[in-house]
Amino acid sequence: MTNEELKKAALDYHEFPRPGKLGIEITKGFSTPEELSLAYTPGVAEPVLAIQANPEDAYRYTAKGNLVAVISNGTAVLGLGDCGALAGKPVMEGKAVLFKKFADIDVFDIEVDAKEPKDFIDTVARIAPTFGGINLEDIAAPSCFEIEDALIERLDIPVFHDDQHGTAIVLCAGLINALELVGKKIEDVRIVCLGAGAAGIASMRLAVDLGARRENMLLVDRKGVIHRDRDDFSKLNKEKLEFASAASAERRSLAGALAGADVFIGVSGPGLMKPEWLMLMAENPLIFALSNPVPEILPEAAWSVRKDLIMATGRSDYPNQVNNVLCFPFIFRGALDVRARTINSAMKVAAVKAIAELAKQPVPQEVLAAYRKNSLSFGPDYIIPKPIDPRLRDIVAPAVARAAVDSGAARLPYPAHYPV
Amino acid sequence: MTNEELKKAALDYHEFPRPGKLGIEITKGFSTPEELSLAYTPGVAEPVLAIQANPEDAYRYTAKGNLVAVISNGTAVLGLGDCGALAGKPVMEGKAVLFKKFADIDVFDIEVDAKEPKDFIDTVARIAPTFGGINLEDIAAPSCFEIEDALIERLDIPVFHDDQHGTAIVLCAGLINALELVGKKIEDVRIVCLGAGAAGIASMRLAVDLGARRENMLLVDRKGVIHRDRDDFSKLNKEKLEFASAASAERRSLAGALAGADVFIGVSGPGLMKPEWLMLMAENPLIFALSNPVPEILPEAAWSVRKDLIMATGRSDYPNQVNNVLCFPFIFRGALDVRARTINSAMKVAAVKAIAELAKQPVPQEVLAAYRKNSLSFGPDYIIPKPIDPRLRDIVAPAVARAAVDSGAARLPYPAHYPV
Repeated sequence: MTNEELKKAALDYHEFPRPGKLGIEITKGFSTPEELSLAYTPGVAEPVLAIQANPEDAYRYTAKGNLVAVISNGTAVLGLGDCGALAGKPVMEGKAVLFKKFADIDVFDIEVDAKEPKDFIDTVARIAPTFGGINLEDIAAPSCFEIEDALIERLDIPVFHDDQHGTAIVLCAGLINALELVGKKIEDVRIVCLGAGAAGIASMRLAVDLGARRENMLLVDRKGVIHRDRDDFSKLNKEKLEFASAASAERRSLAGALAGADVFIGVSGPGLMKPEWLMLMAENPLIFALSNPVPEILPEAAWSVRKDLIMATGRSDYPNQVNNVLCFPFIFRGALDVRARTINSAMKVAAVKAIAELAKQPVPQEVLAAYRKNSLSFGPDYIIPKPIDPRLRDIVAPAVARAAVDSGAARLPYPAHYPV
Repeated sequence: MTNEELKKAALDYHEFPRPGKLGIEITKGFSTPEELSLAYTPGVAEPVLAIQANPEDAYRYTAKGNLVAVISNGTAVLGLGDCGALAGKPVMEGKAVLFKKFADIDVFDIEVDAKEPKDFIDTVARIAPTFGGINLEDIAAPSCFEIEDALIERLDIPVFHDDQHGTAIVLCAGLINALELVGKKIEDVRIVCLGAGAAGIASMRLAVDLGARRENMLLVDRKGVIHRDRDDFSKLNKEKLEFASAASAERRSLAGALAGADVFIGVSGPGLMKPEWLMLMAENPLIFALSNPVPEILPEAAWSVRKDLIMATGRSDYPNQVNNVLCFPFIFRGALDVRARTINSAMKVAAVKAIAELAKQPVPQEVLAAYRKNSLSFGPDYIIPKPIDPRLRDIVAPAVARAAVDSGAARLPYPAHYPV
């Protein structure tokens, strides 16, 4: 398809035969007068009274327990920037559809016309009784950090900003697998992260949770490496300050930072990684160039410079796609199934390890067929499972649920229908 | 069924096989990699850009145009009072199911933890981009008036407080039919309304829109008739003041008000209308005793006192049930189908007349069968159509749409697929 054809196909898909991608489904019998009298007055008074007496009964008698809100104010839609709340709706509906398709989770997409963090936070907190969990989406940094922190503090249901943690989890799954392949330890490697927004900060934090050492990490924004002598140091947000380094003068440019580095994480913009810089990096460098659709460096360009690297992008047409859909449906599935109060670090780490482990298992025939491959096996071109792998739900959700139970975040025991 | 059996059946209905009554349905093909690339990245960027350029395109490319929010803060749930936002959820889900079943409108139920009108208004206004219309539900008076007024003012989509207008519209349909049967004109009749909450105020206002004269109307609250010499006059809310009368001393009690009255509207509480008061009313009095499940006066009690009355209740087991479901699915269907900016008085009056007119048409066999009747025809025991009448959608929605177009509230022309 040409670009024009793709554009038309995408618009037609959304418009016909009826606008949008989702609707409501009635899940109970609702035809006879008897059913109506149970579903609505007078019968409906009974669950109301039960929930009034015991709020947890909302999980017994309403859709709450399997209902997640995908909520955005449209300030960072895809790579398109601030499109406004309304224009983000097709993306939020798409996310809802992914939740349903991959994990049978019902989602209401909610577009919030509020850019001020306080207004957004208040709005989400007030509508939260409706939901069993909240997936924040496409909210610009640094507001996204303040918003997520405040909502986690105020609410007793999982709140998860997918642009941060979904990306971080899948990236880190690829990272620990790639490190294993090149025989390096996460405690020892030097990591350079270009891009200090939602995904960059969350990825660095999660890498620390997995064992990476802050003194080995350099975070780079538009003005270069974040270090303590920067002119704008006093104006940096606290998330950037968390990774402010004591880098010496020669390591304060991106090229300087990359000298001897083992891992490059790009969550910034197209083409920002120059091929010649790859030569500065250590042996067997790991390159995560996640800008989408155009990565920081294209695989062809990288491979033309050196052959000893492992490379991942955000794209489906190259090996090792870092795709959030490997994570968010299943981390919520696990969290909802044990009625977790939050999604904590232990649950995120469990998701990382479960996704990473899956890449070492033999790949099912249906996945090979979908990708028109004869074989796929753990190695430099397969460090991350494919998004359509049907085993993800059965592996990631239980791992997350187990971690929730073990870390005290769960209100229910580990589900009986999950694998032991 | 005994009460205990009904209670258990209602709870079981809500709990099994899975909690609640609704879920999400994916409305587009979403299986192949090609479909995913249209529904989500990269294709989804196209509708985003289109909507950013032209906000009306949200109606072309998203579910917005057929999506209504049923929103409550739980301050007046059924007749149970302030149950809180969460406990109202089974009712809001039930309402969602009714919208879907009767008019194929998709509904997200939203429970809002905010009792202060300003907080509630801000919350609803901020999430409004998500929706094509807003149905306010189970919000206590007098806040409900302030909330609805403010949201109508702030938003350019229909906002409709069903406890007010749904009740008023169906009641007034019955009223104009009953008046025709007894040969009285609405301009001439004396109306007494017991109950000055959401339904009472809205019913009185709509009766005025239909021709009733304020000087013929008495509104009665817990303290008696609302009149200008009341001790608490300065503290009355503006909705009550709108109907403050110059009633003389002997007409300031309910019994006094009923002397010679033609119409009694009860939207108050069980048993508040004494049978002996019926004797005070004019010939052929019309009794709308809508307190539910126990009306202000039971039909048996009324008929034992006099035979020349026409009686309606909120119950399905007596003739002439005033049930909001006769109205709300179809008034929204009509409003959405012409993309109305609001639901104005002309549209409400059109709904009244369409519903009333339907009661004069021969009743379909399926309706007779459902009610185990051999016949039903326009008369004192059939002034209002039955809720399951399949013709309601085809008659009420077009009438509302026509009124929206004619009154300038519509953004689209009268739909081609509607009857001429």
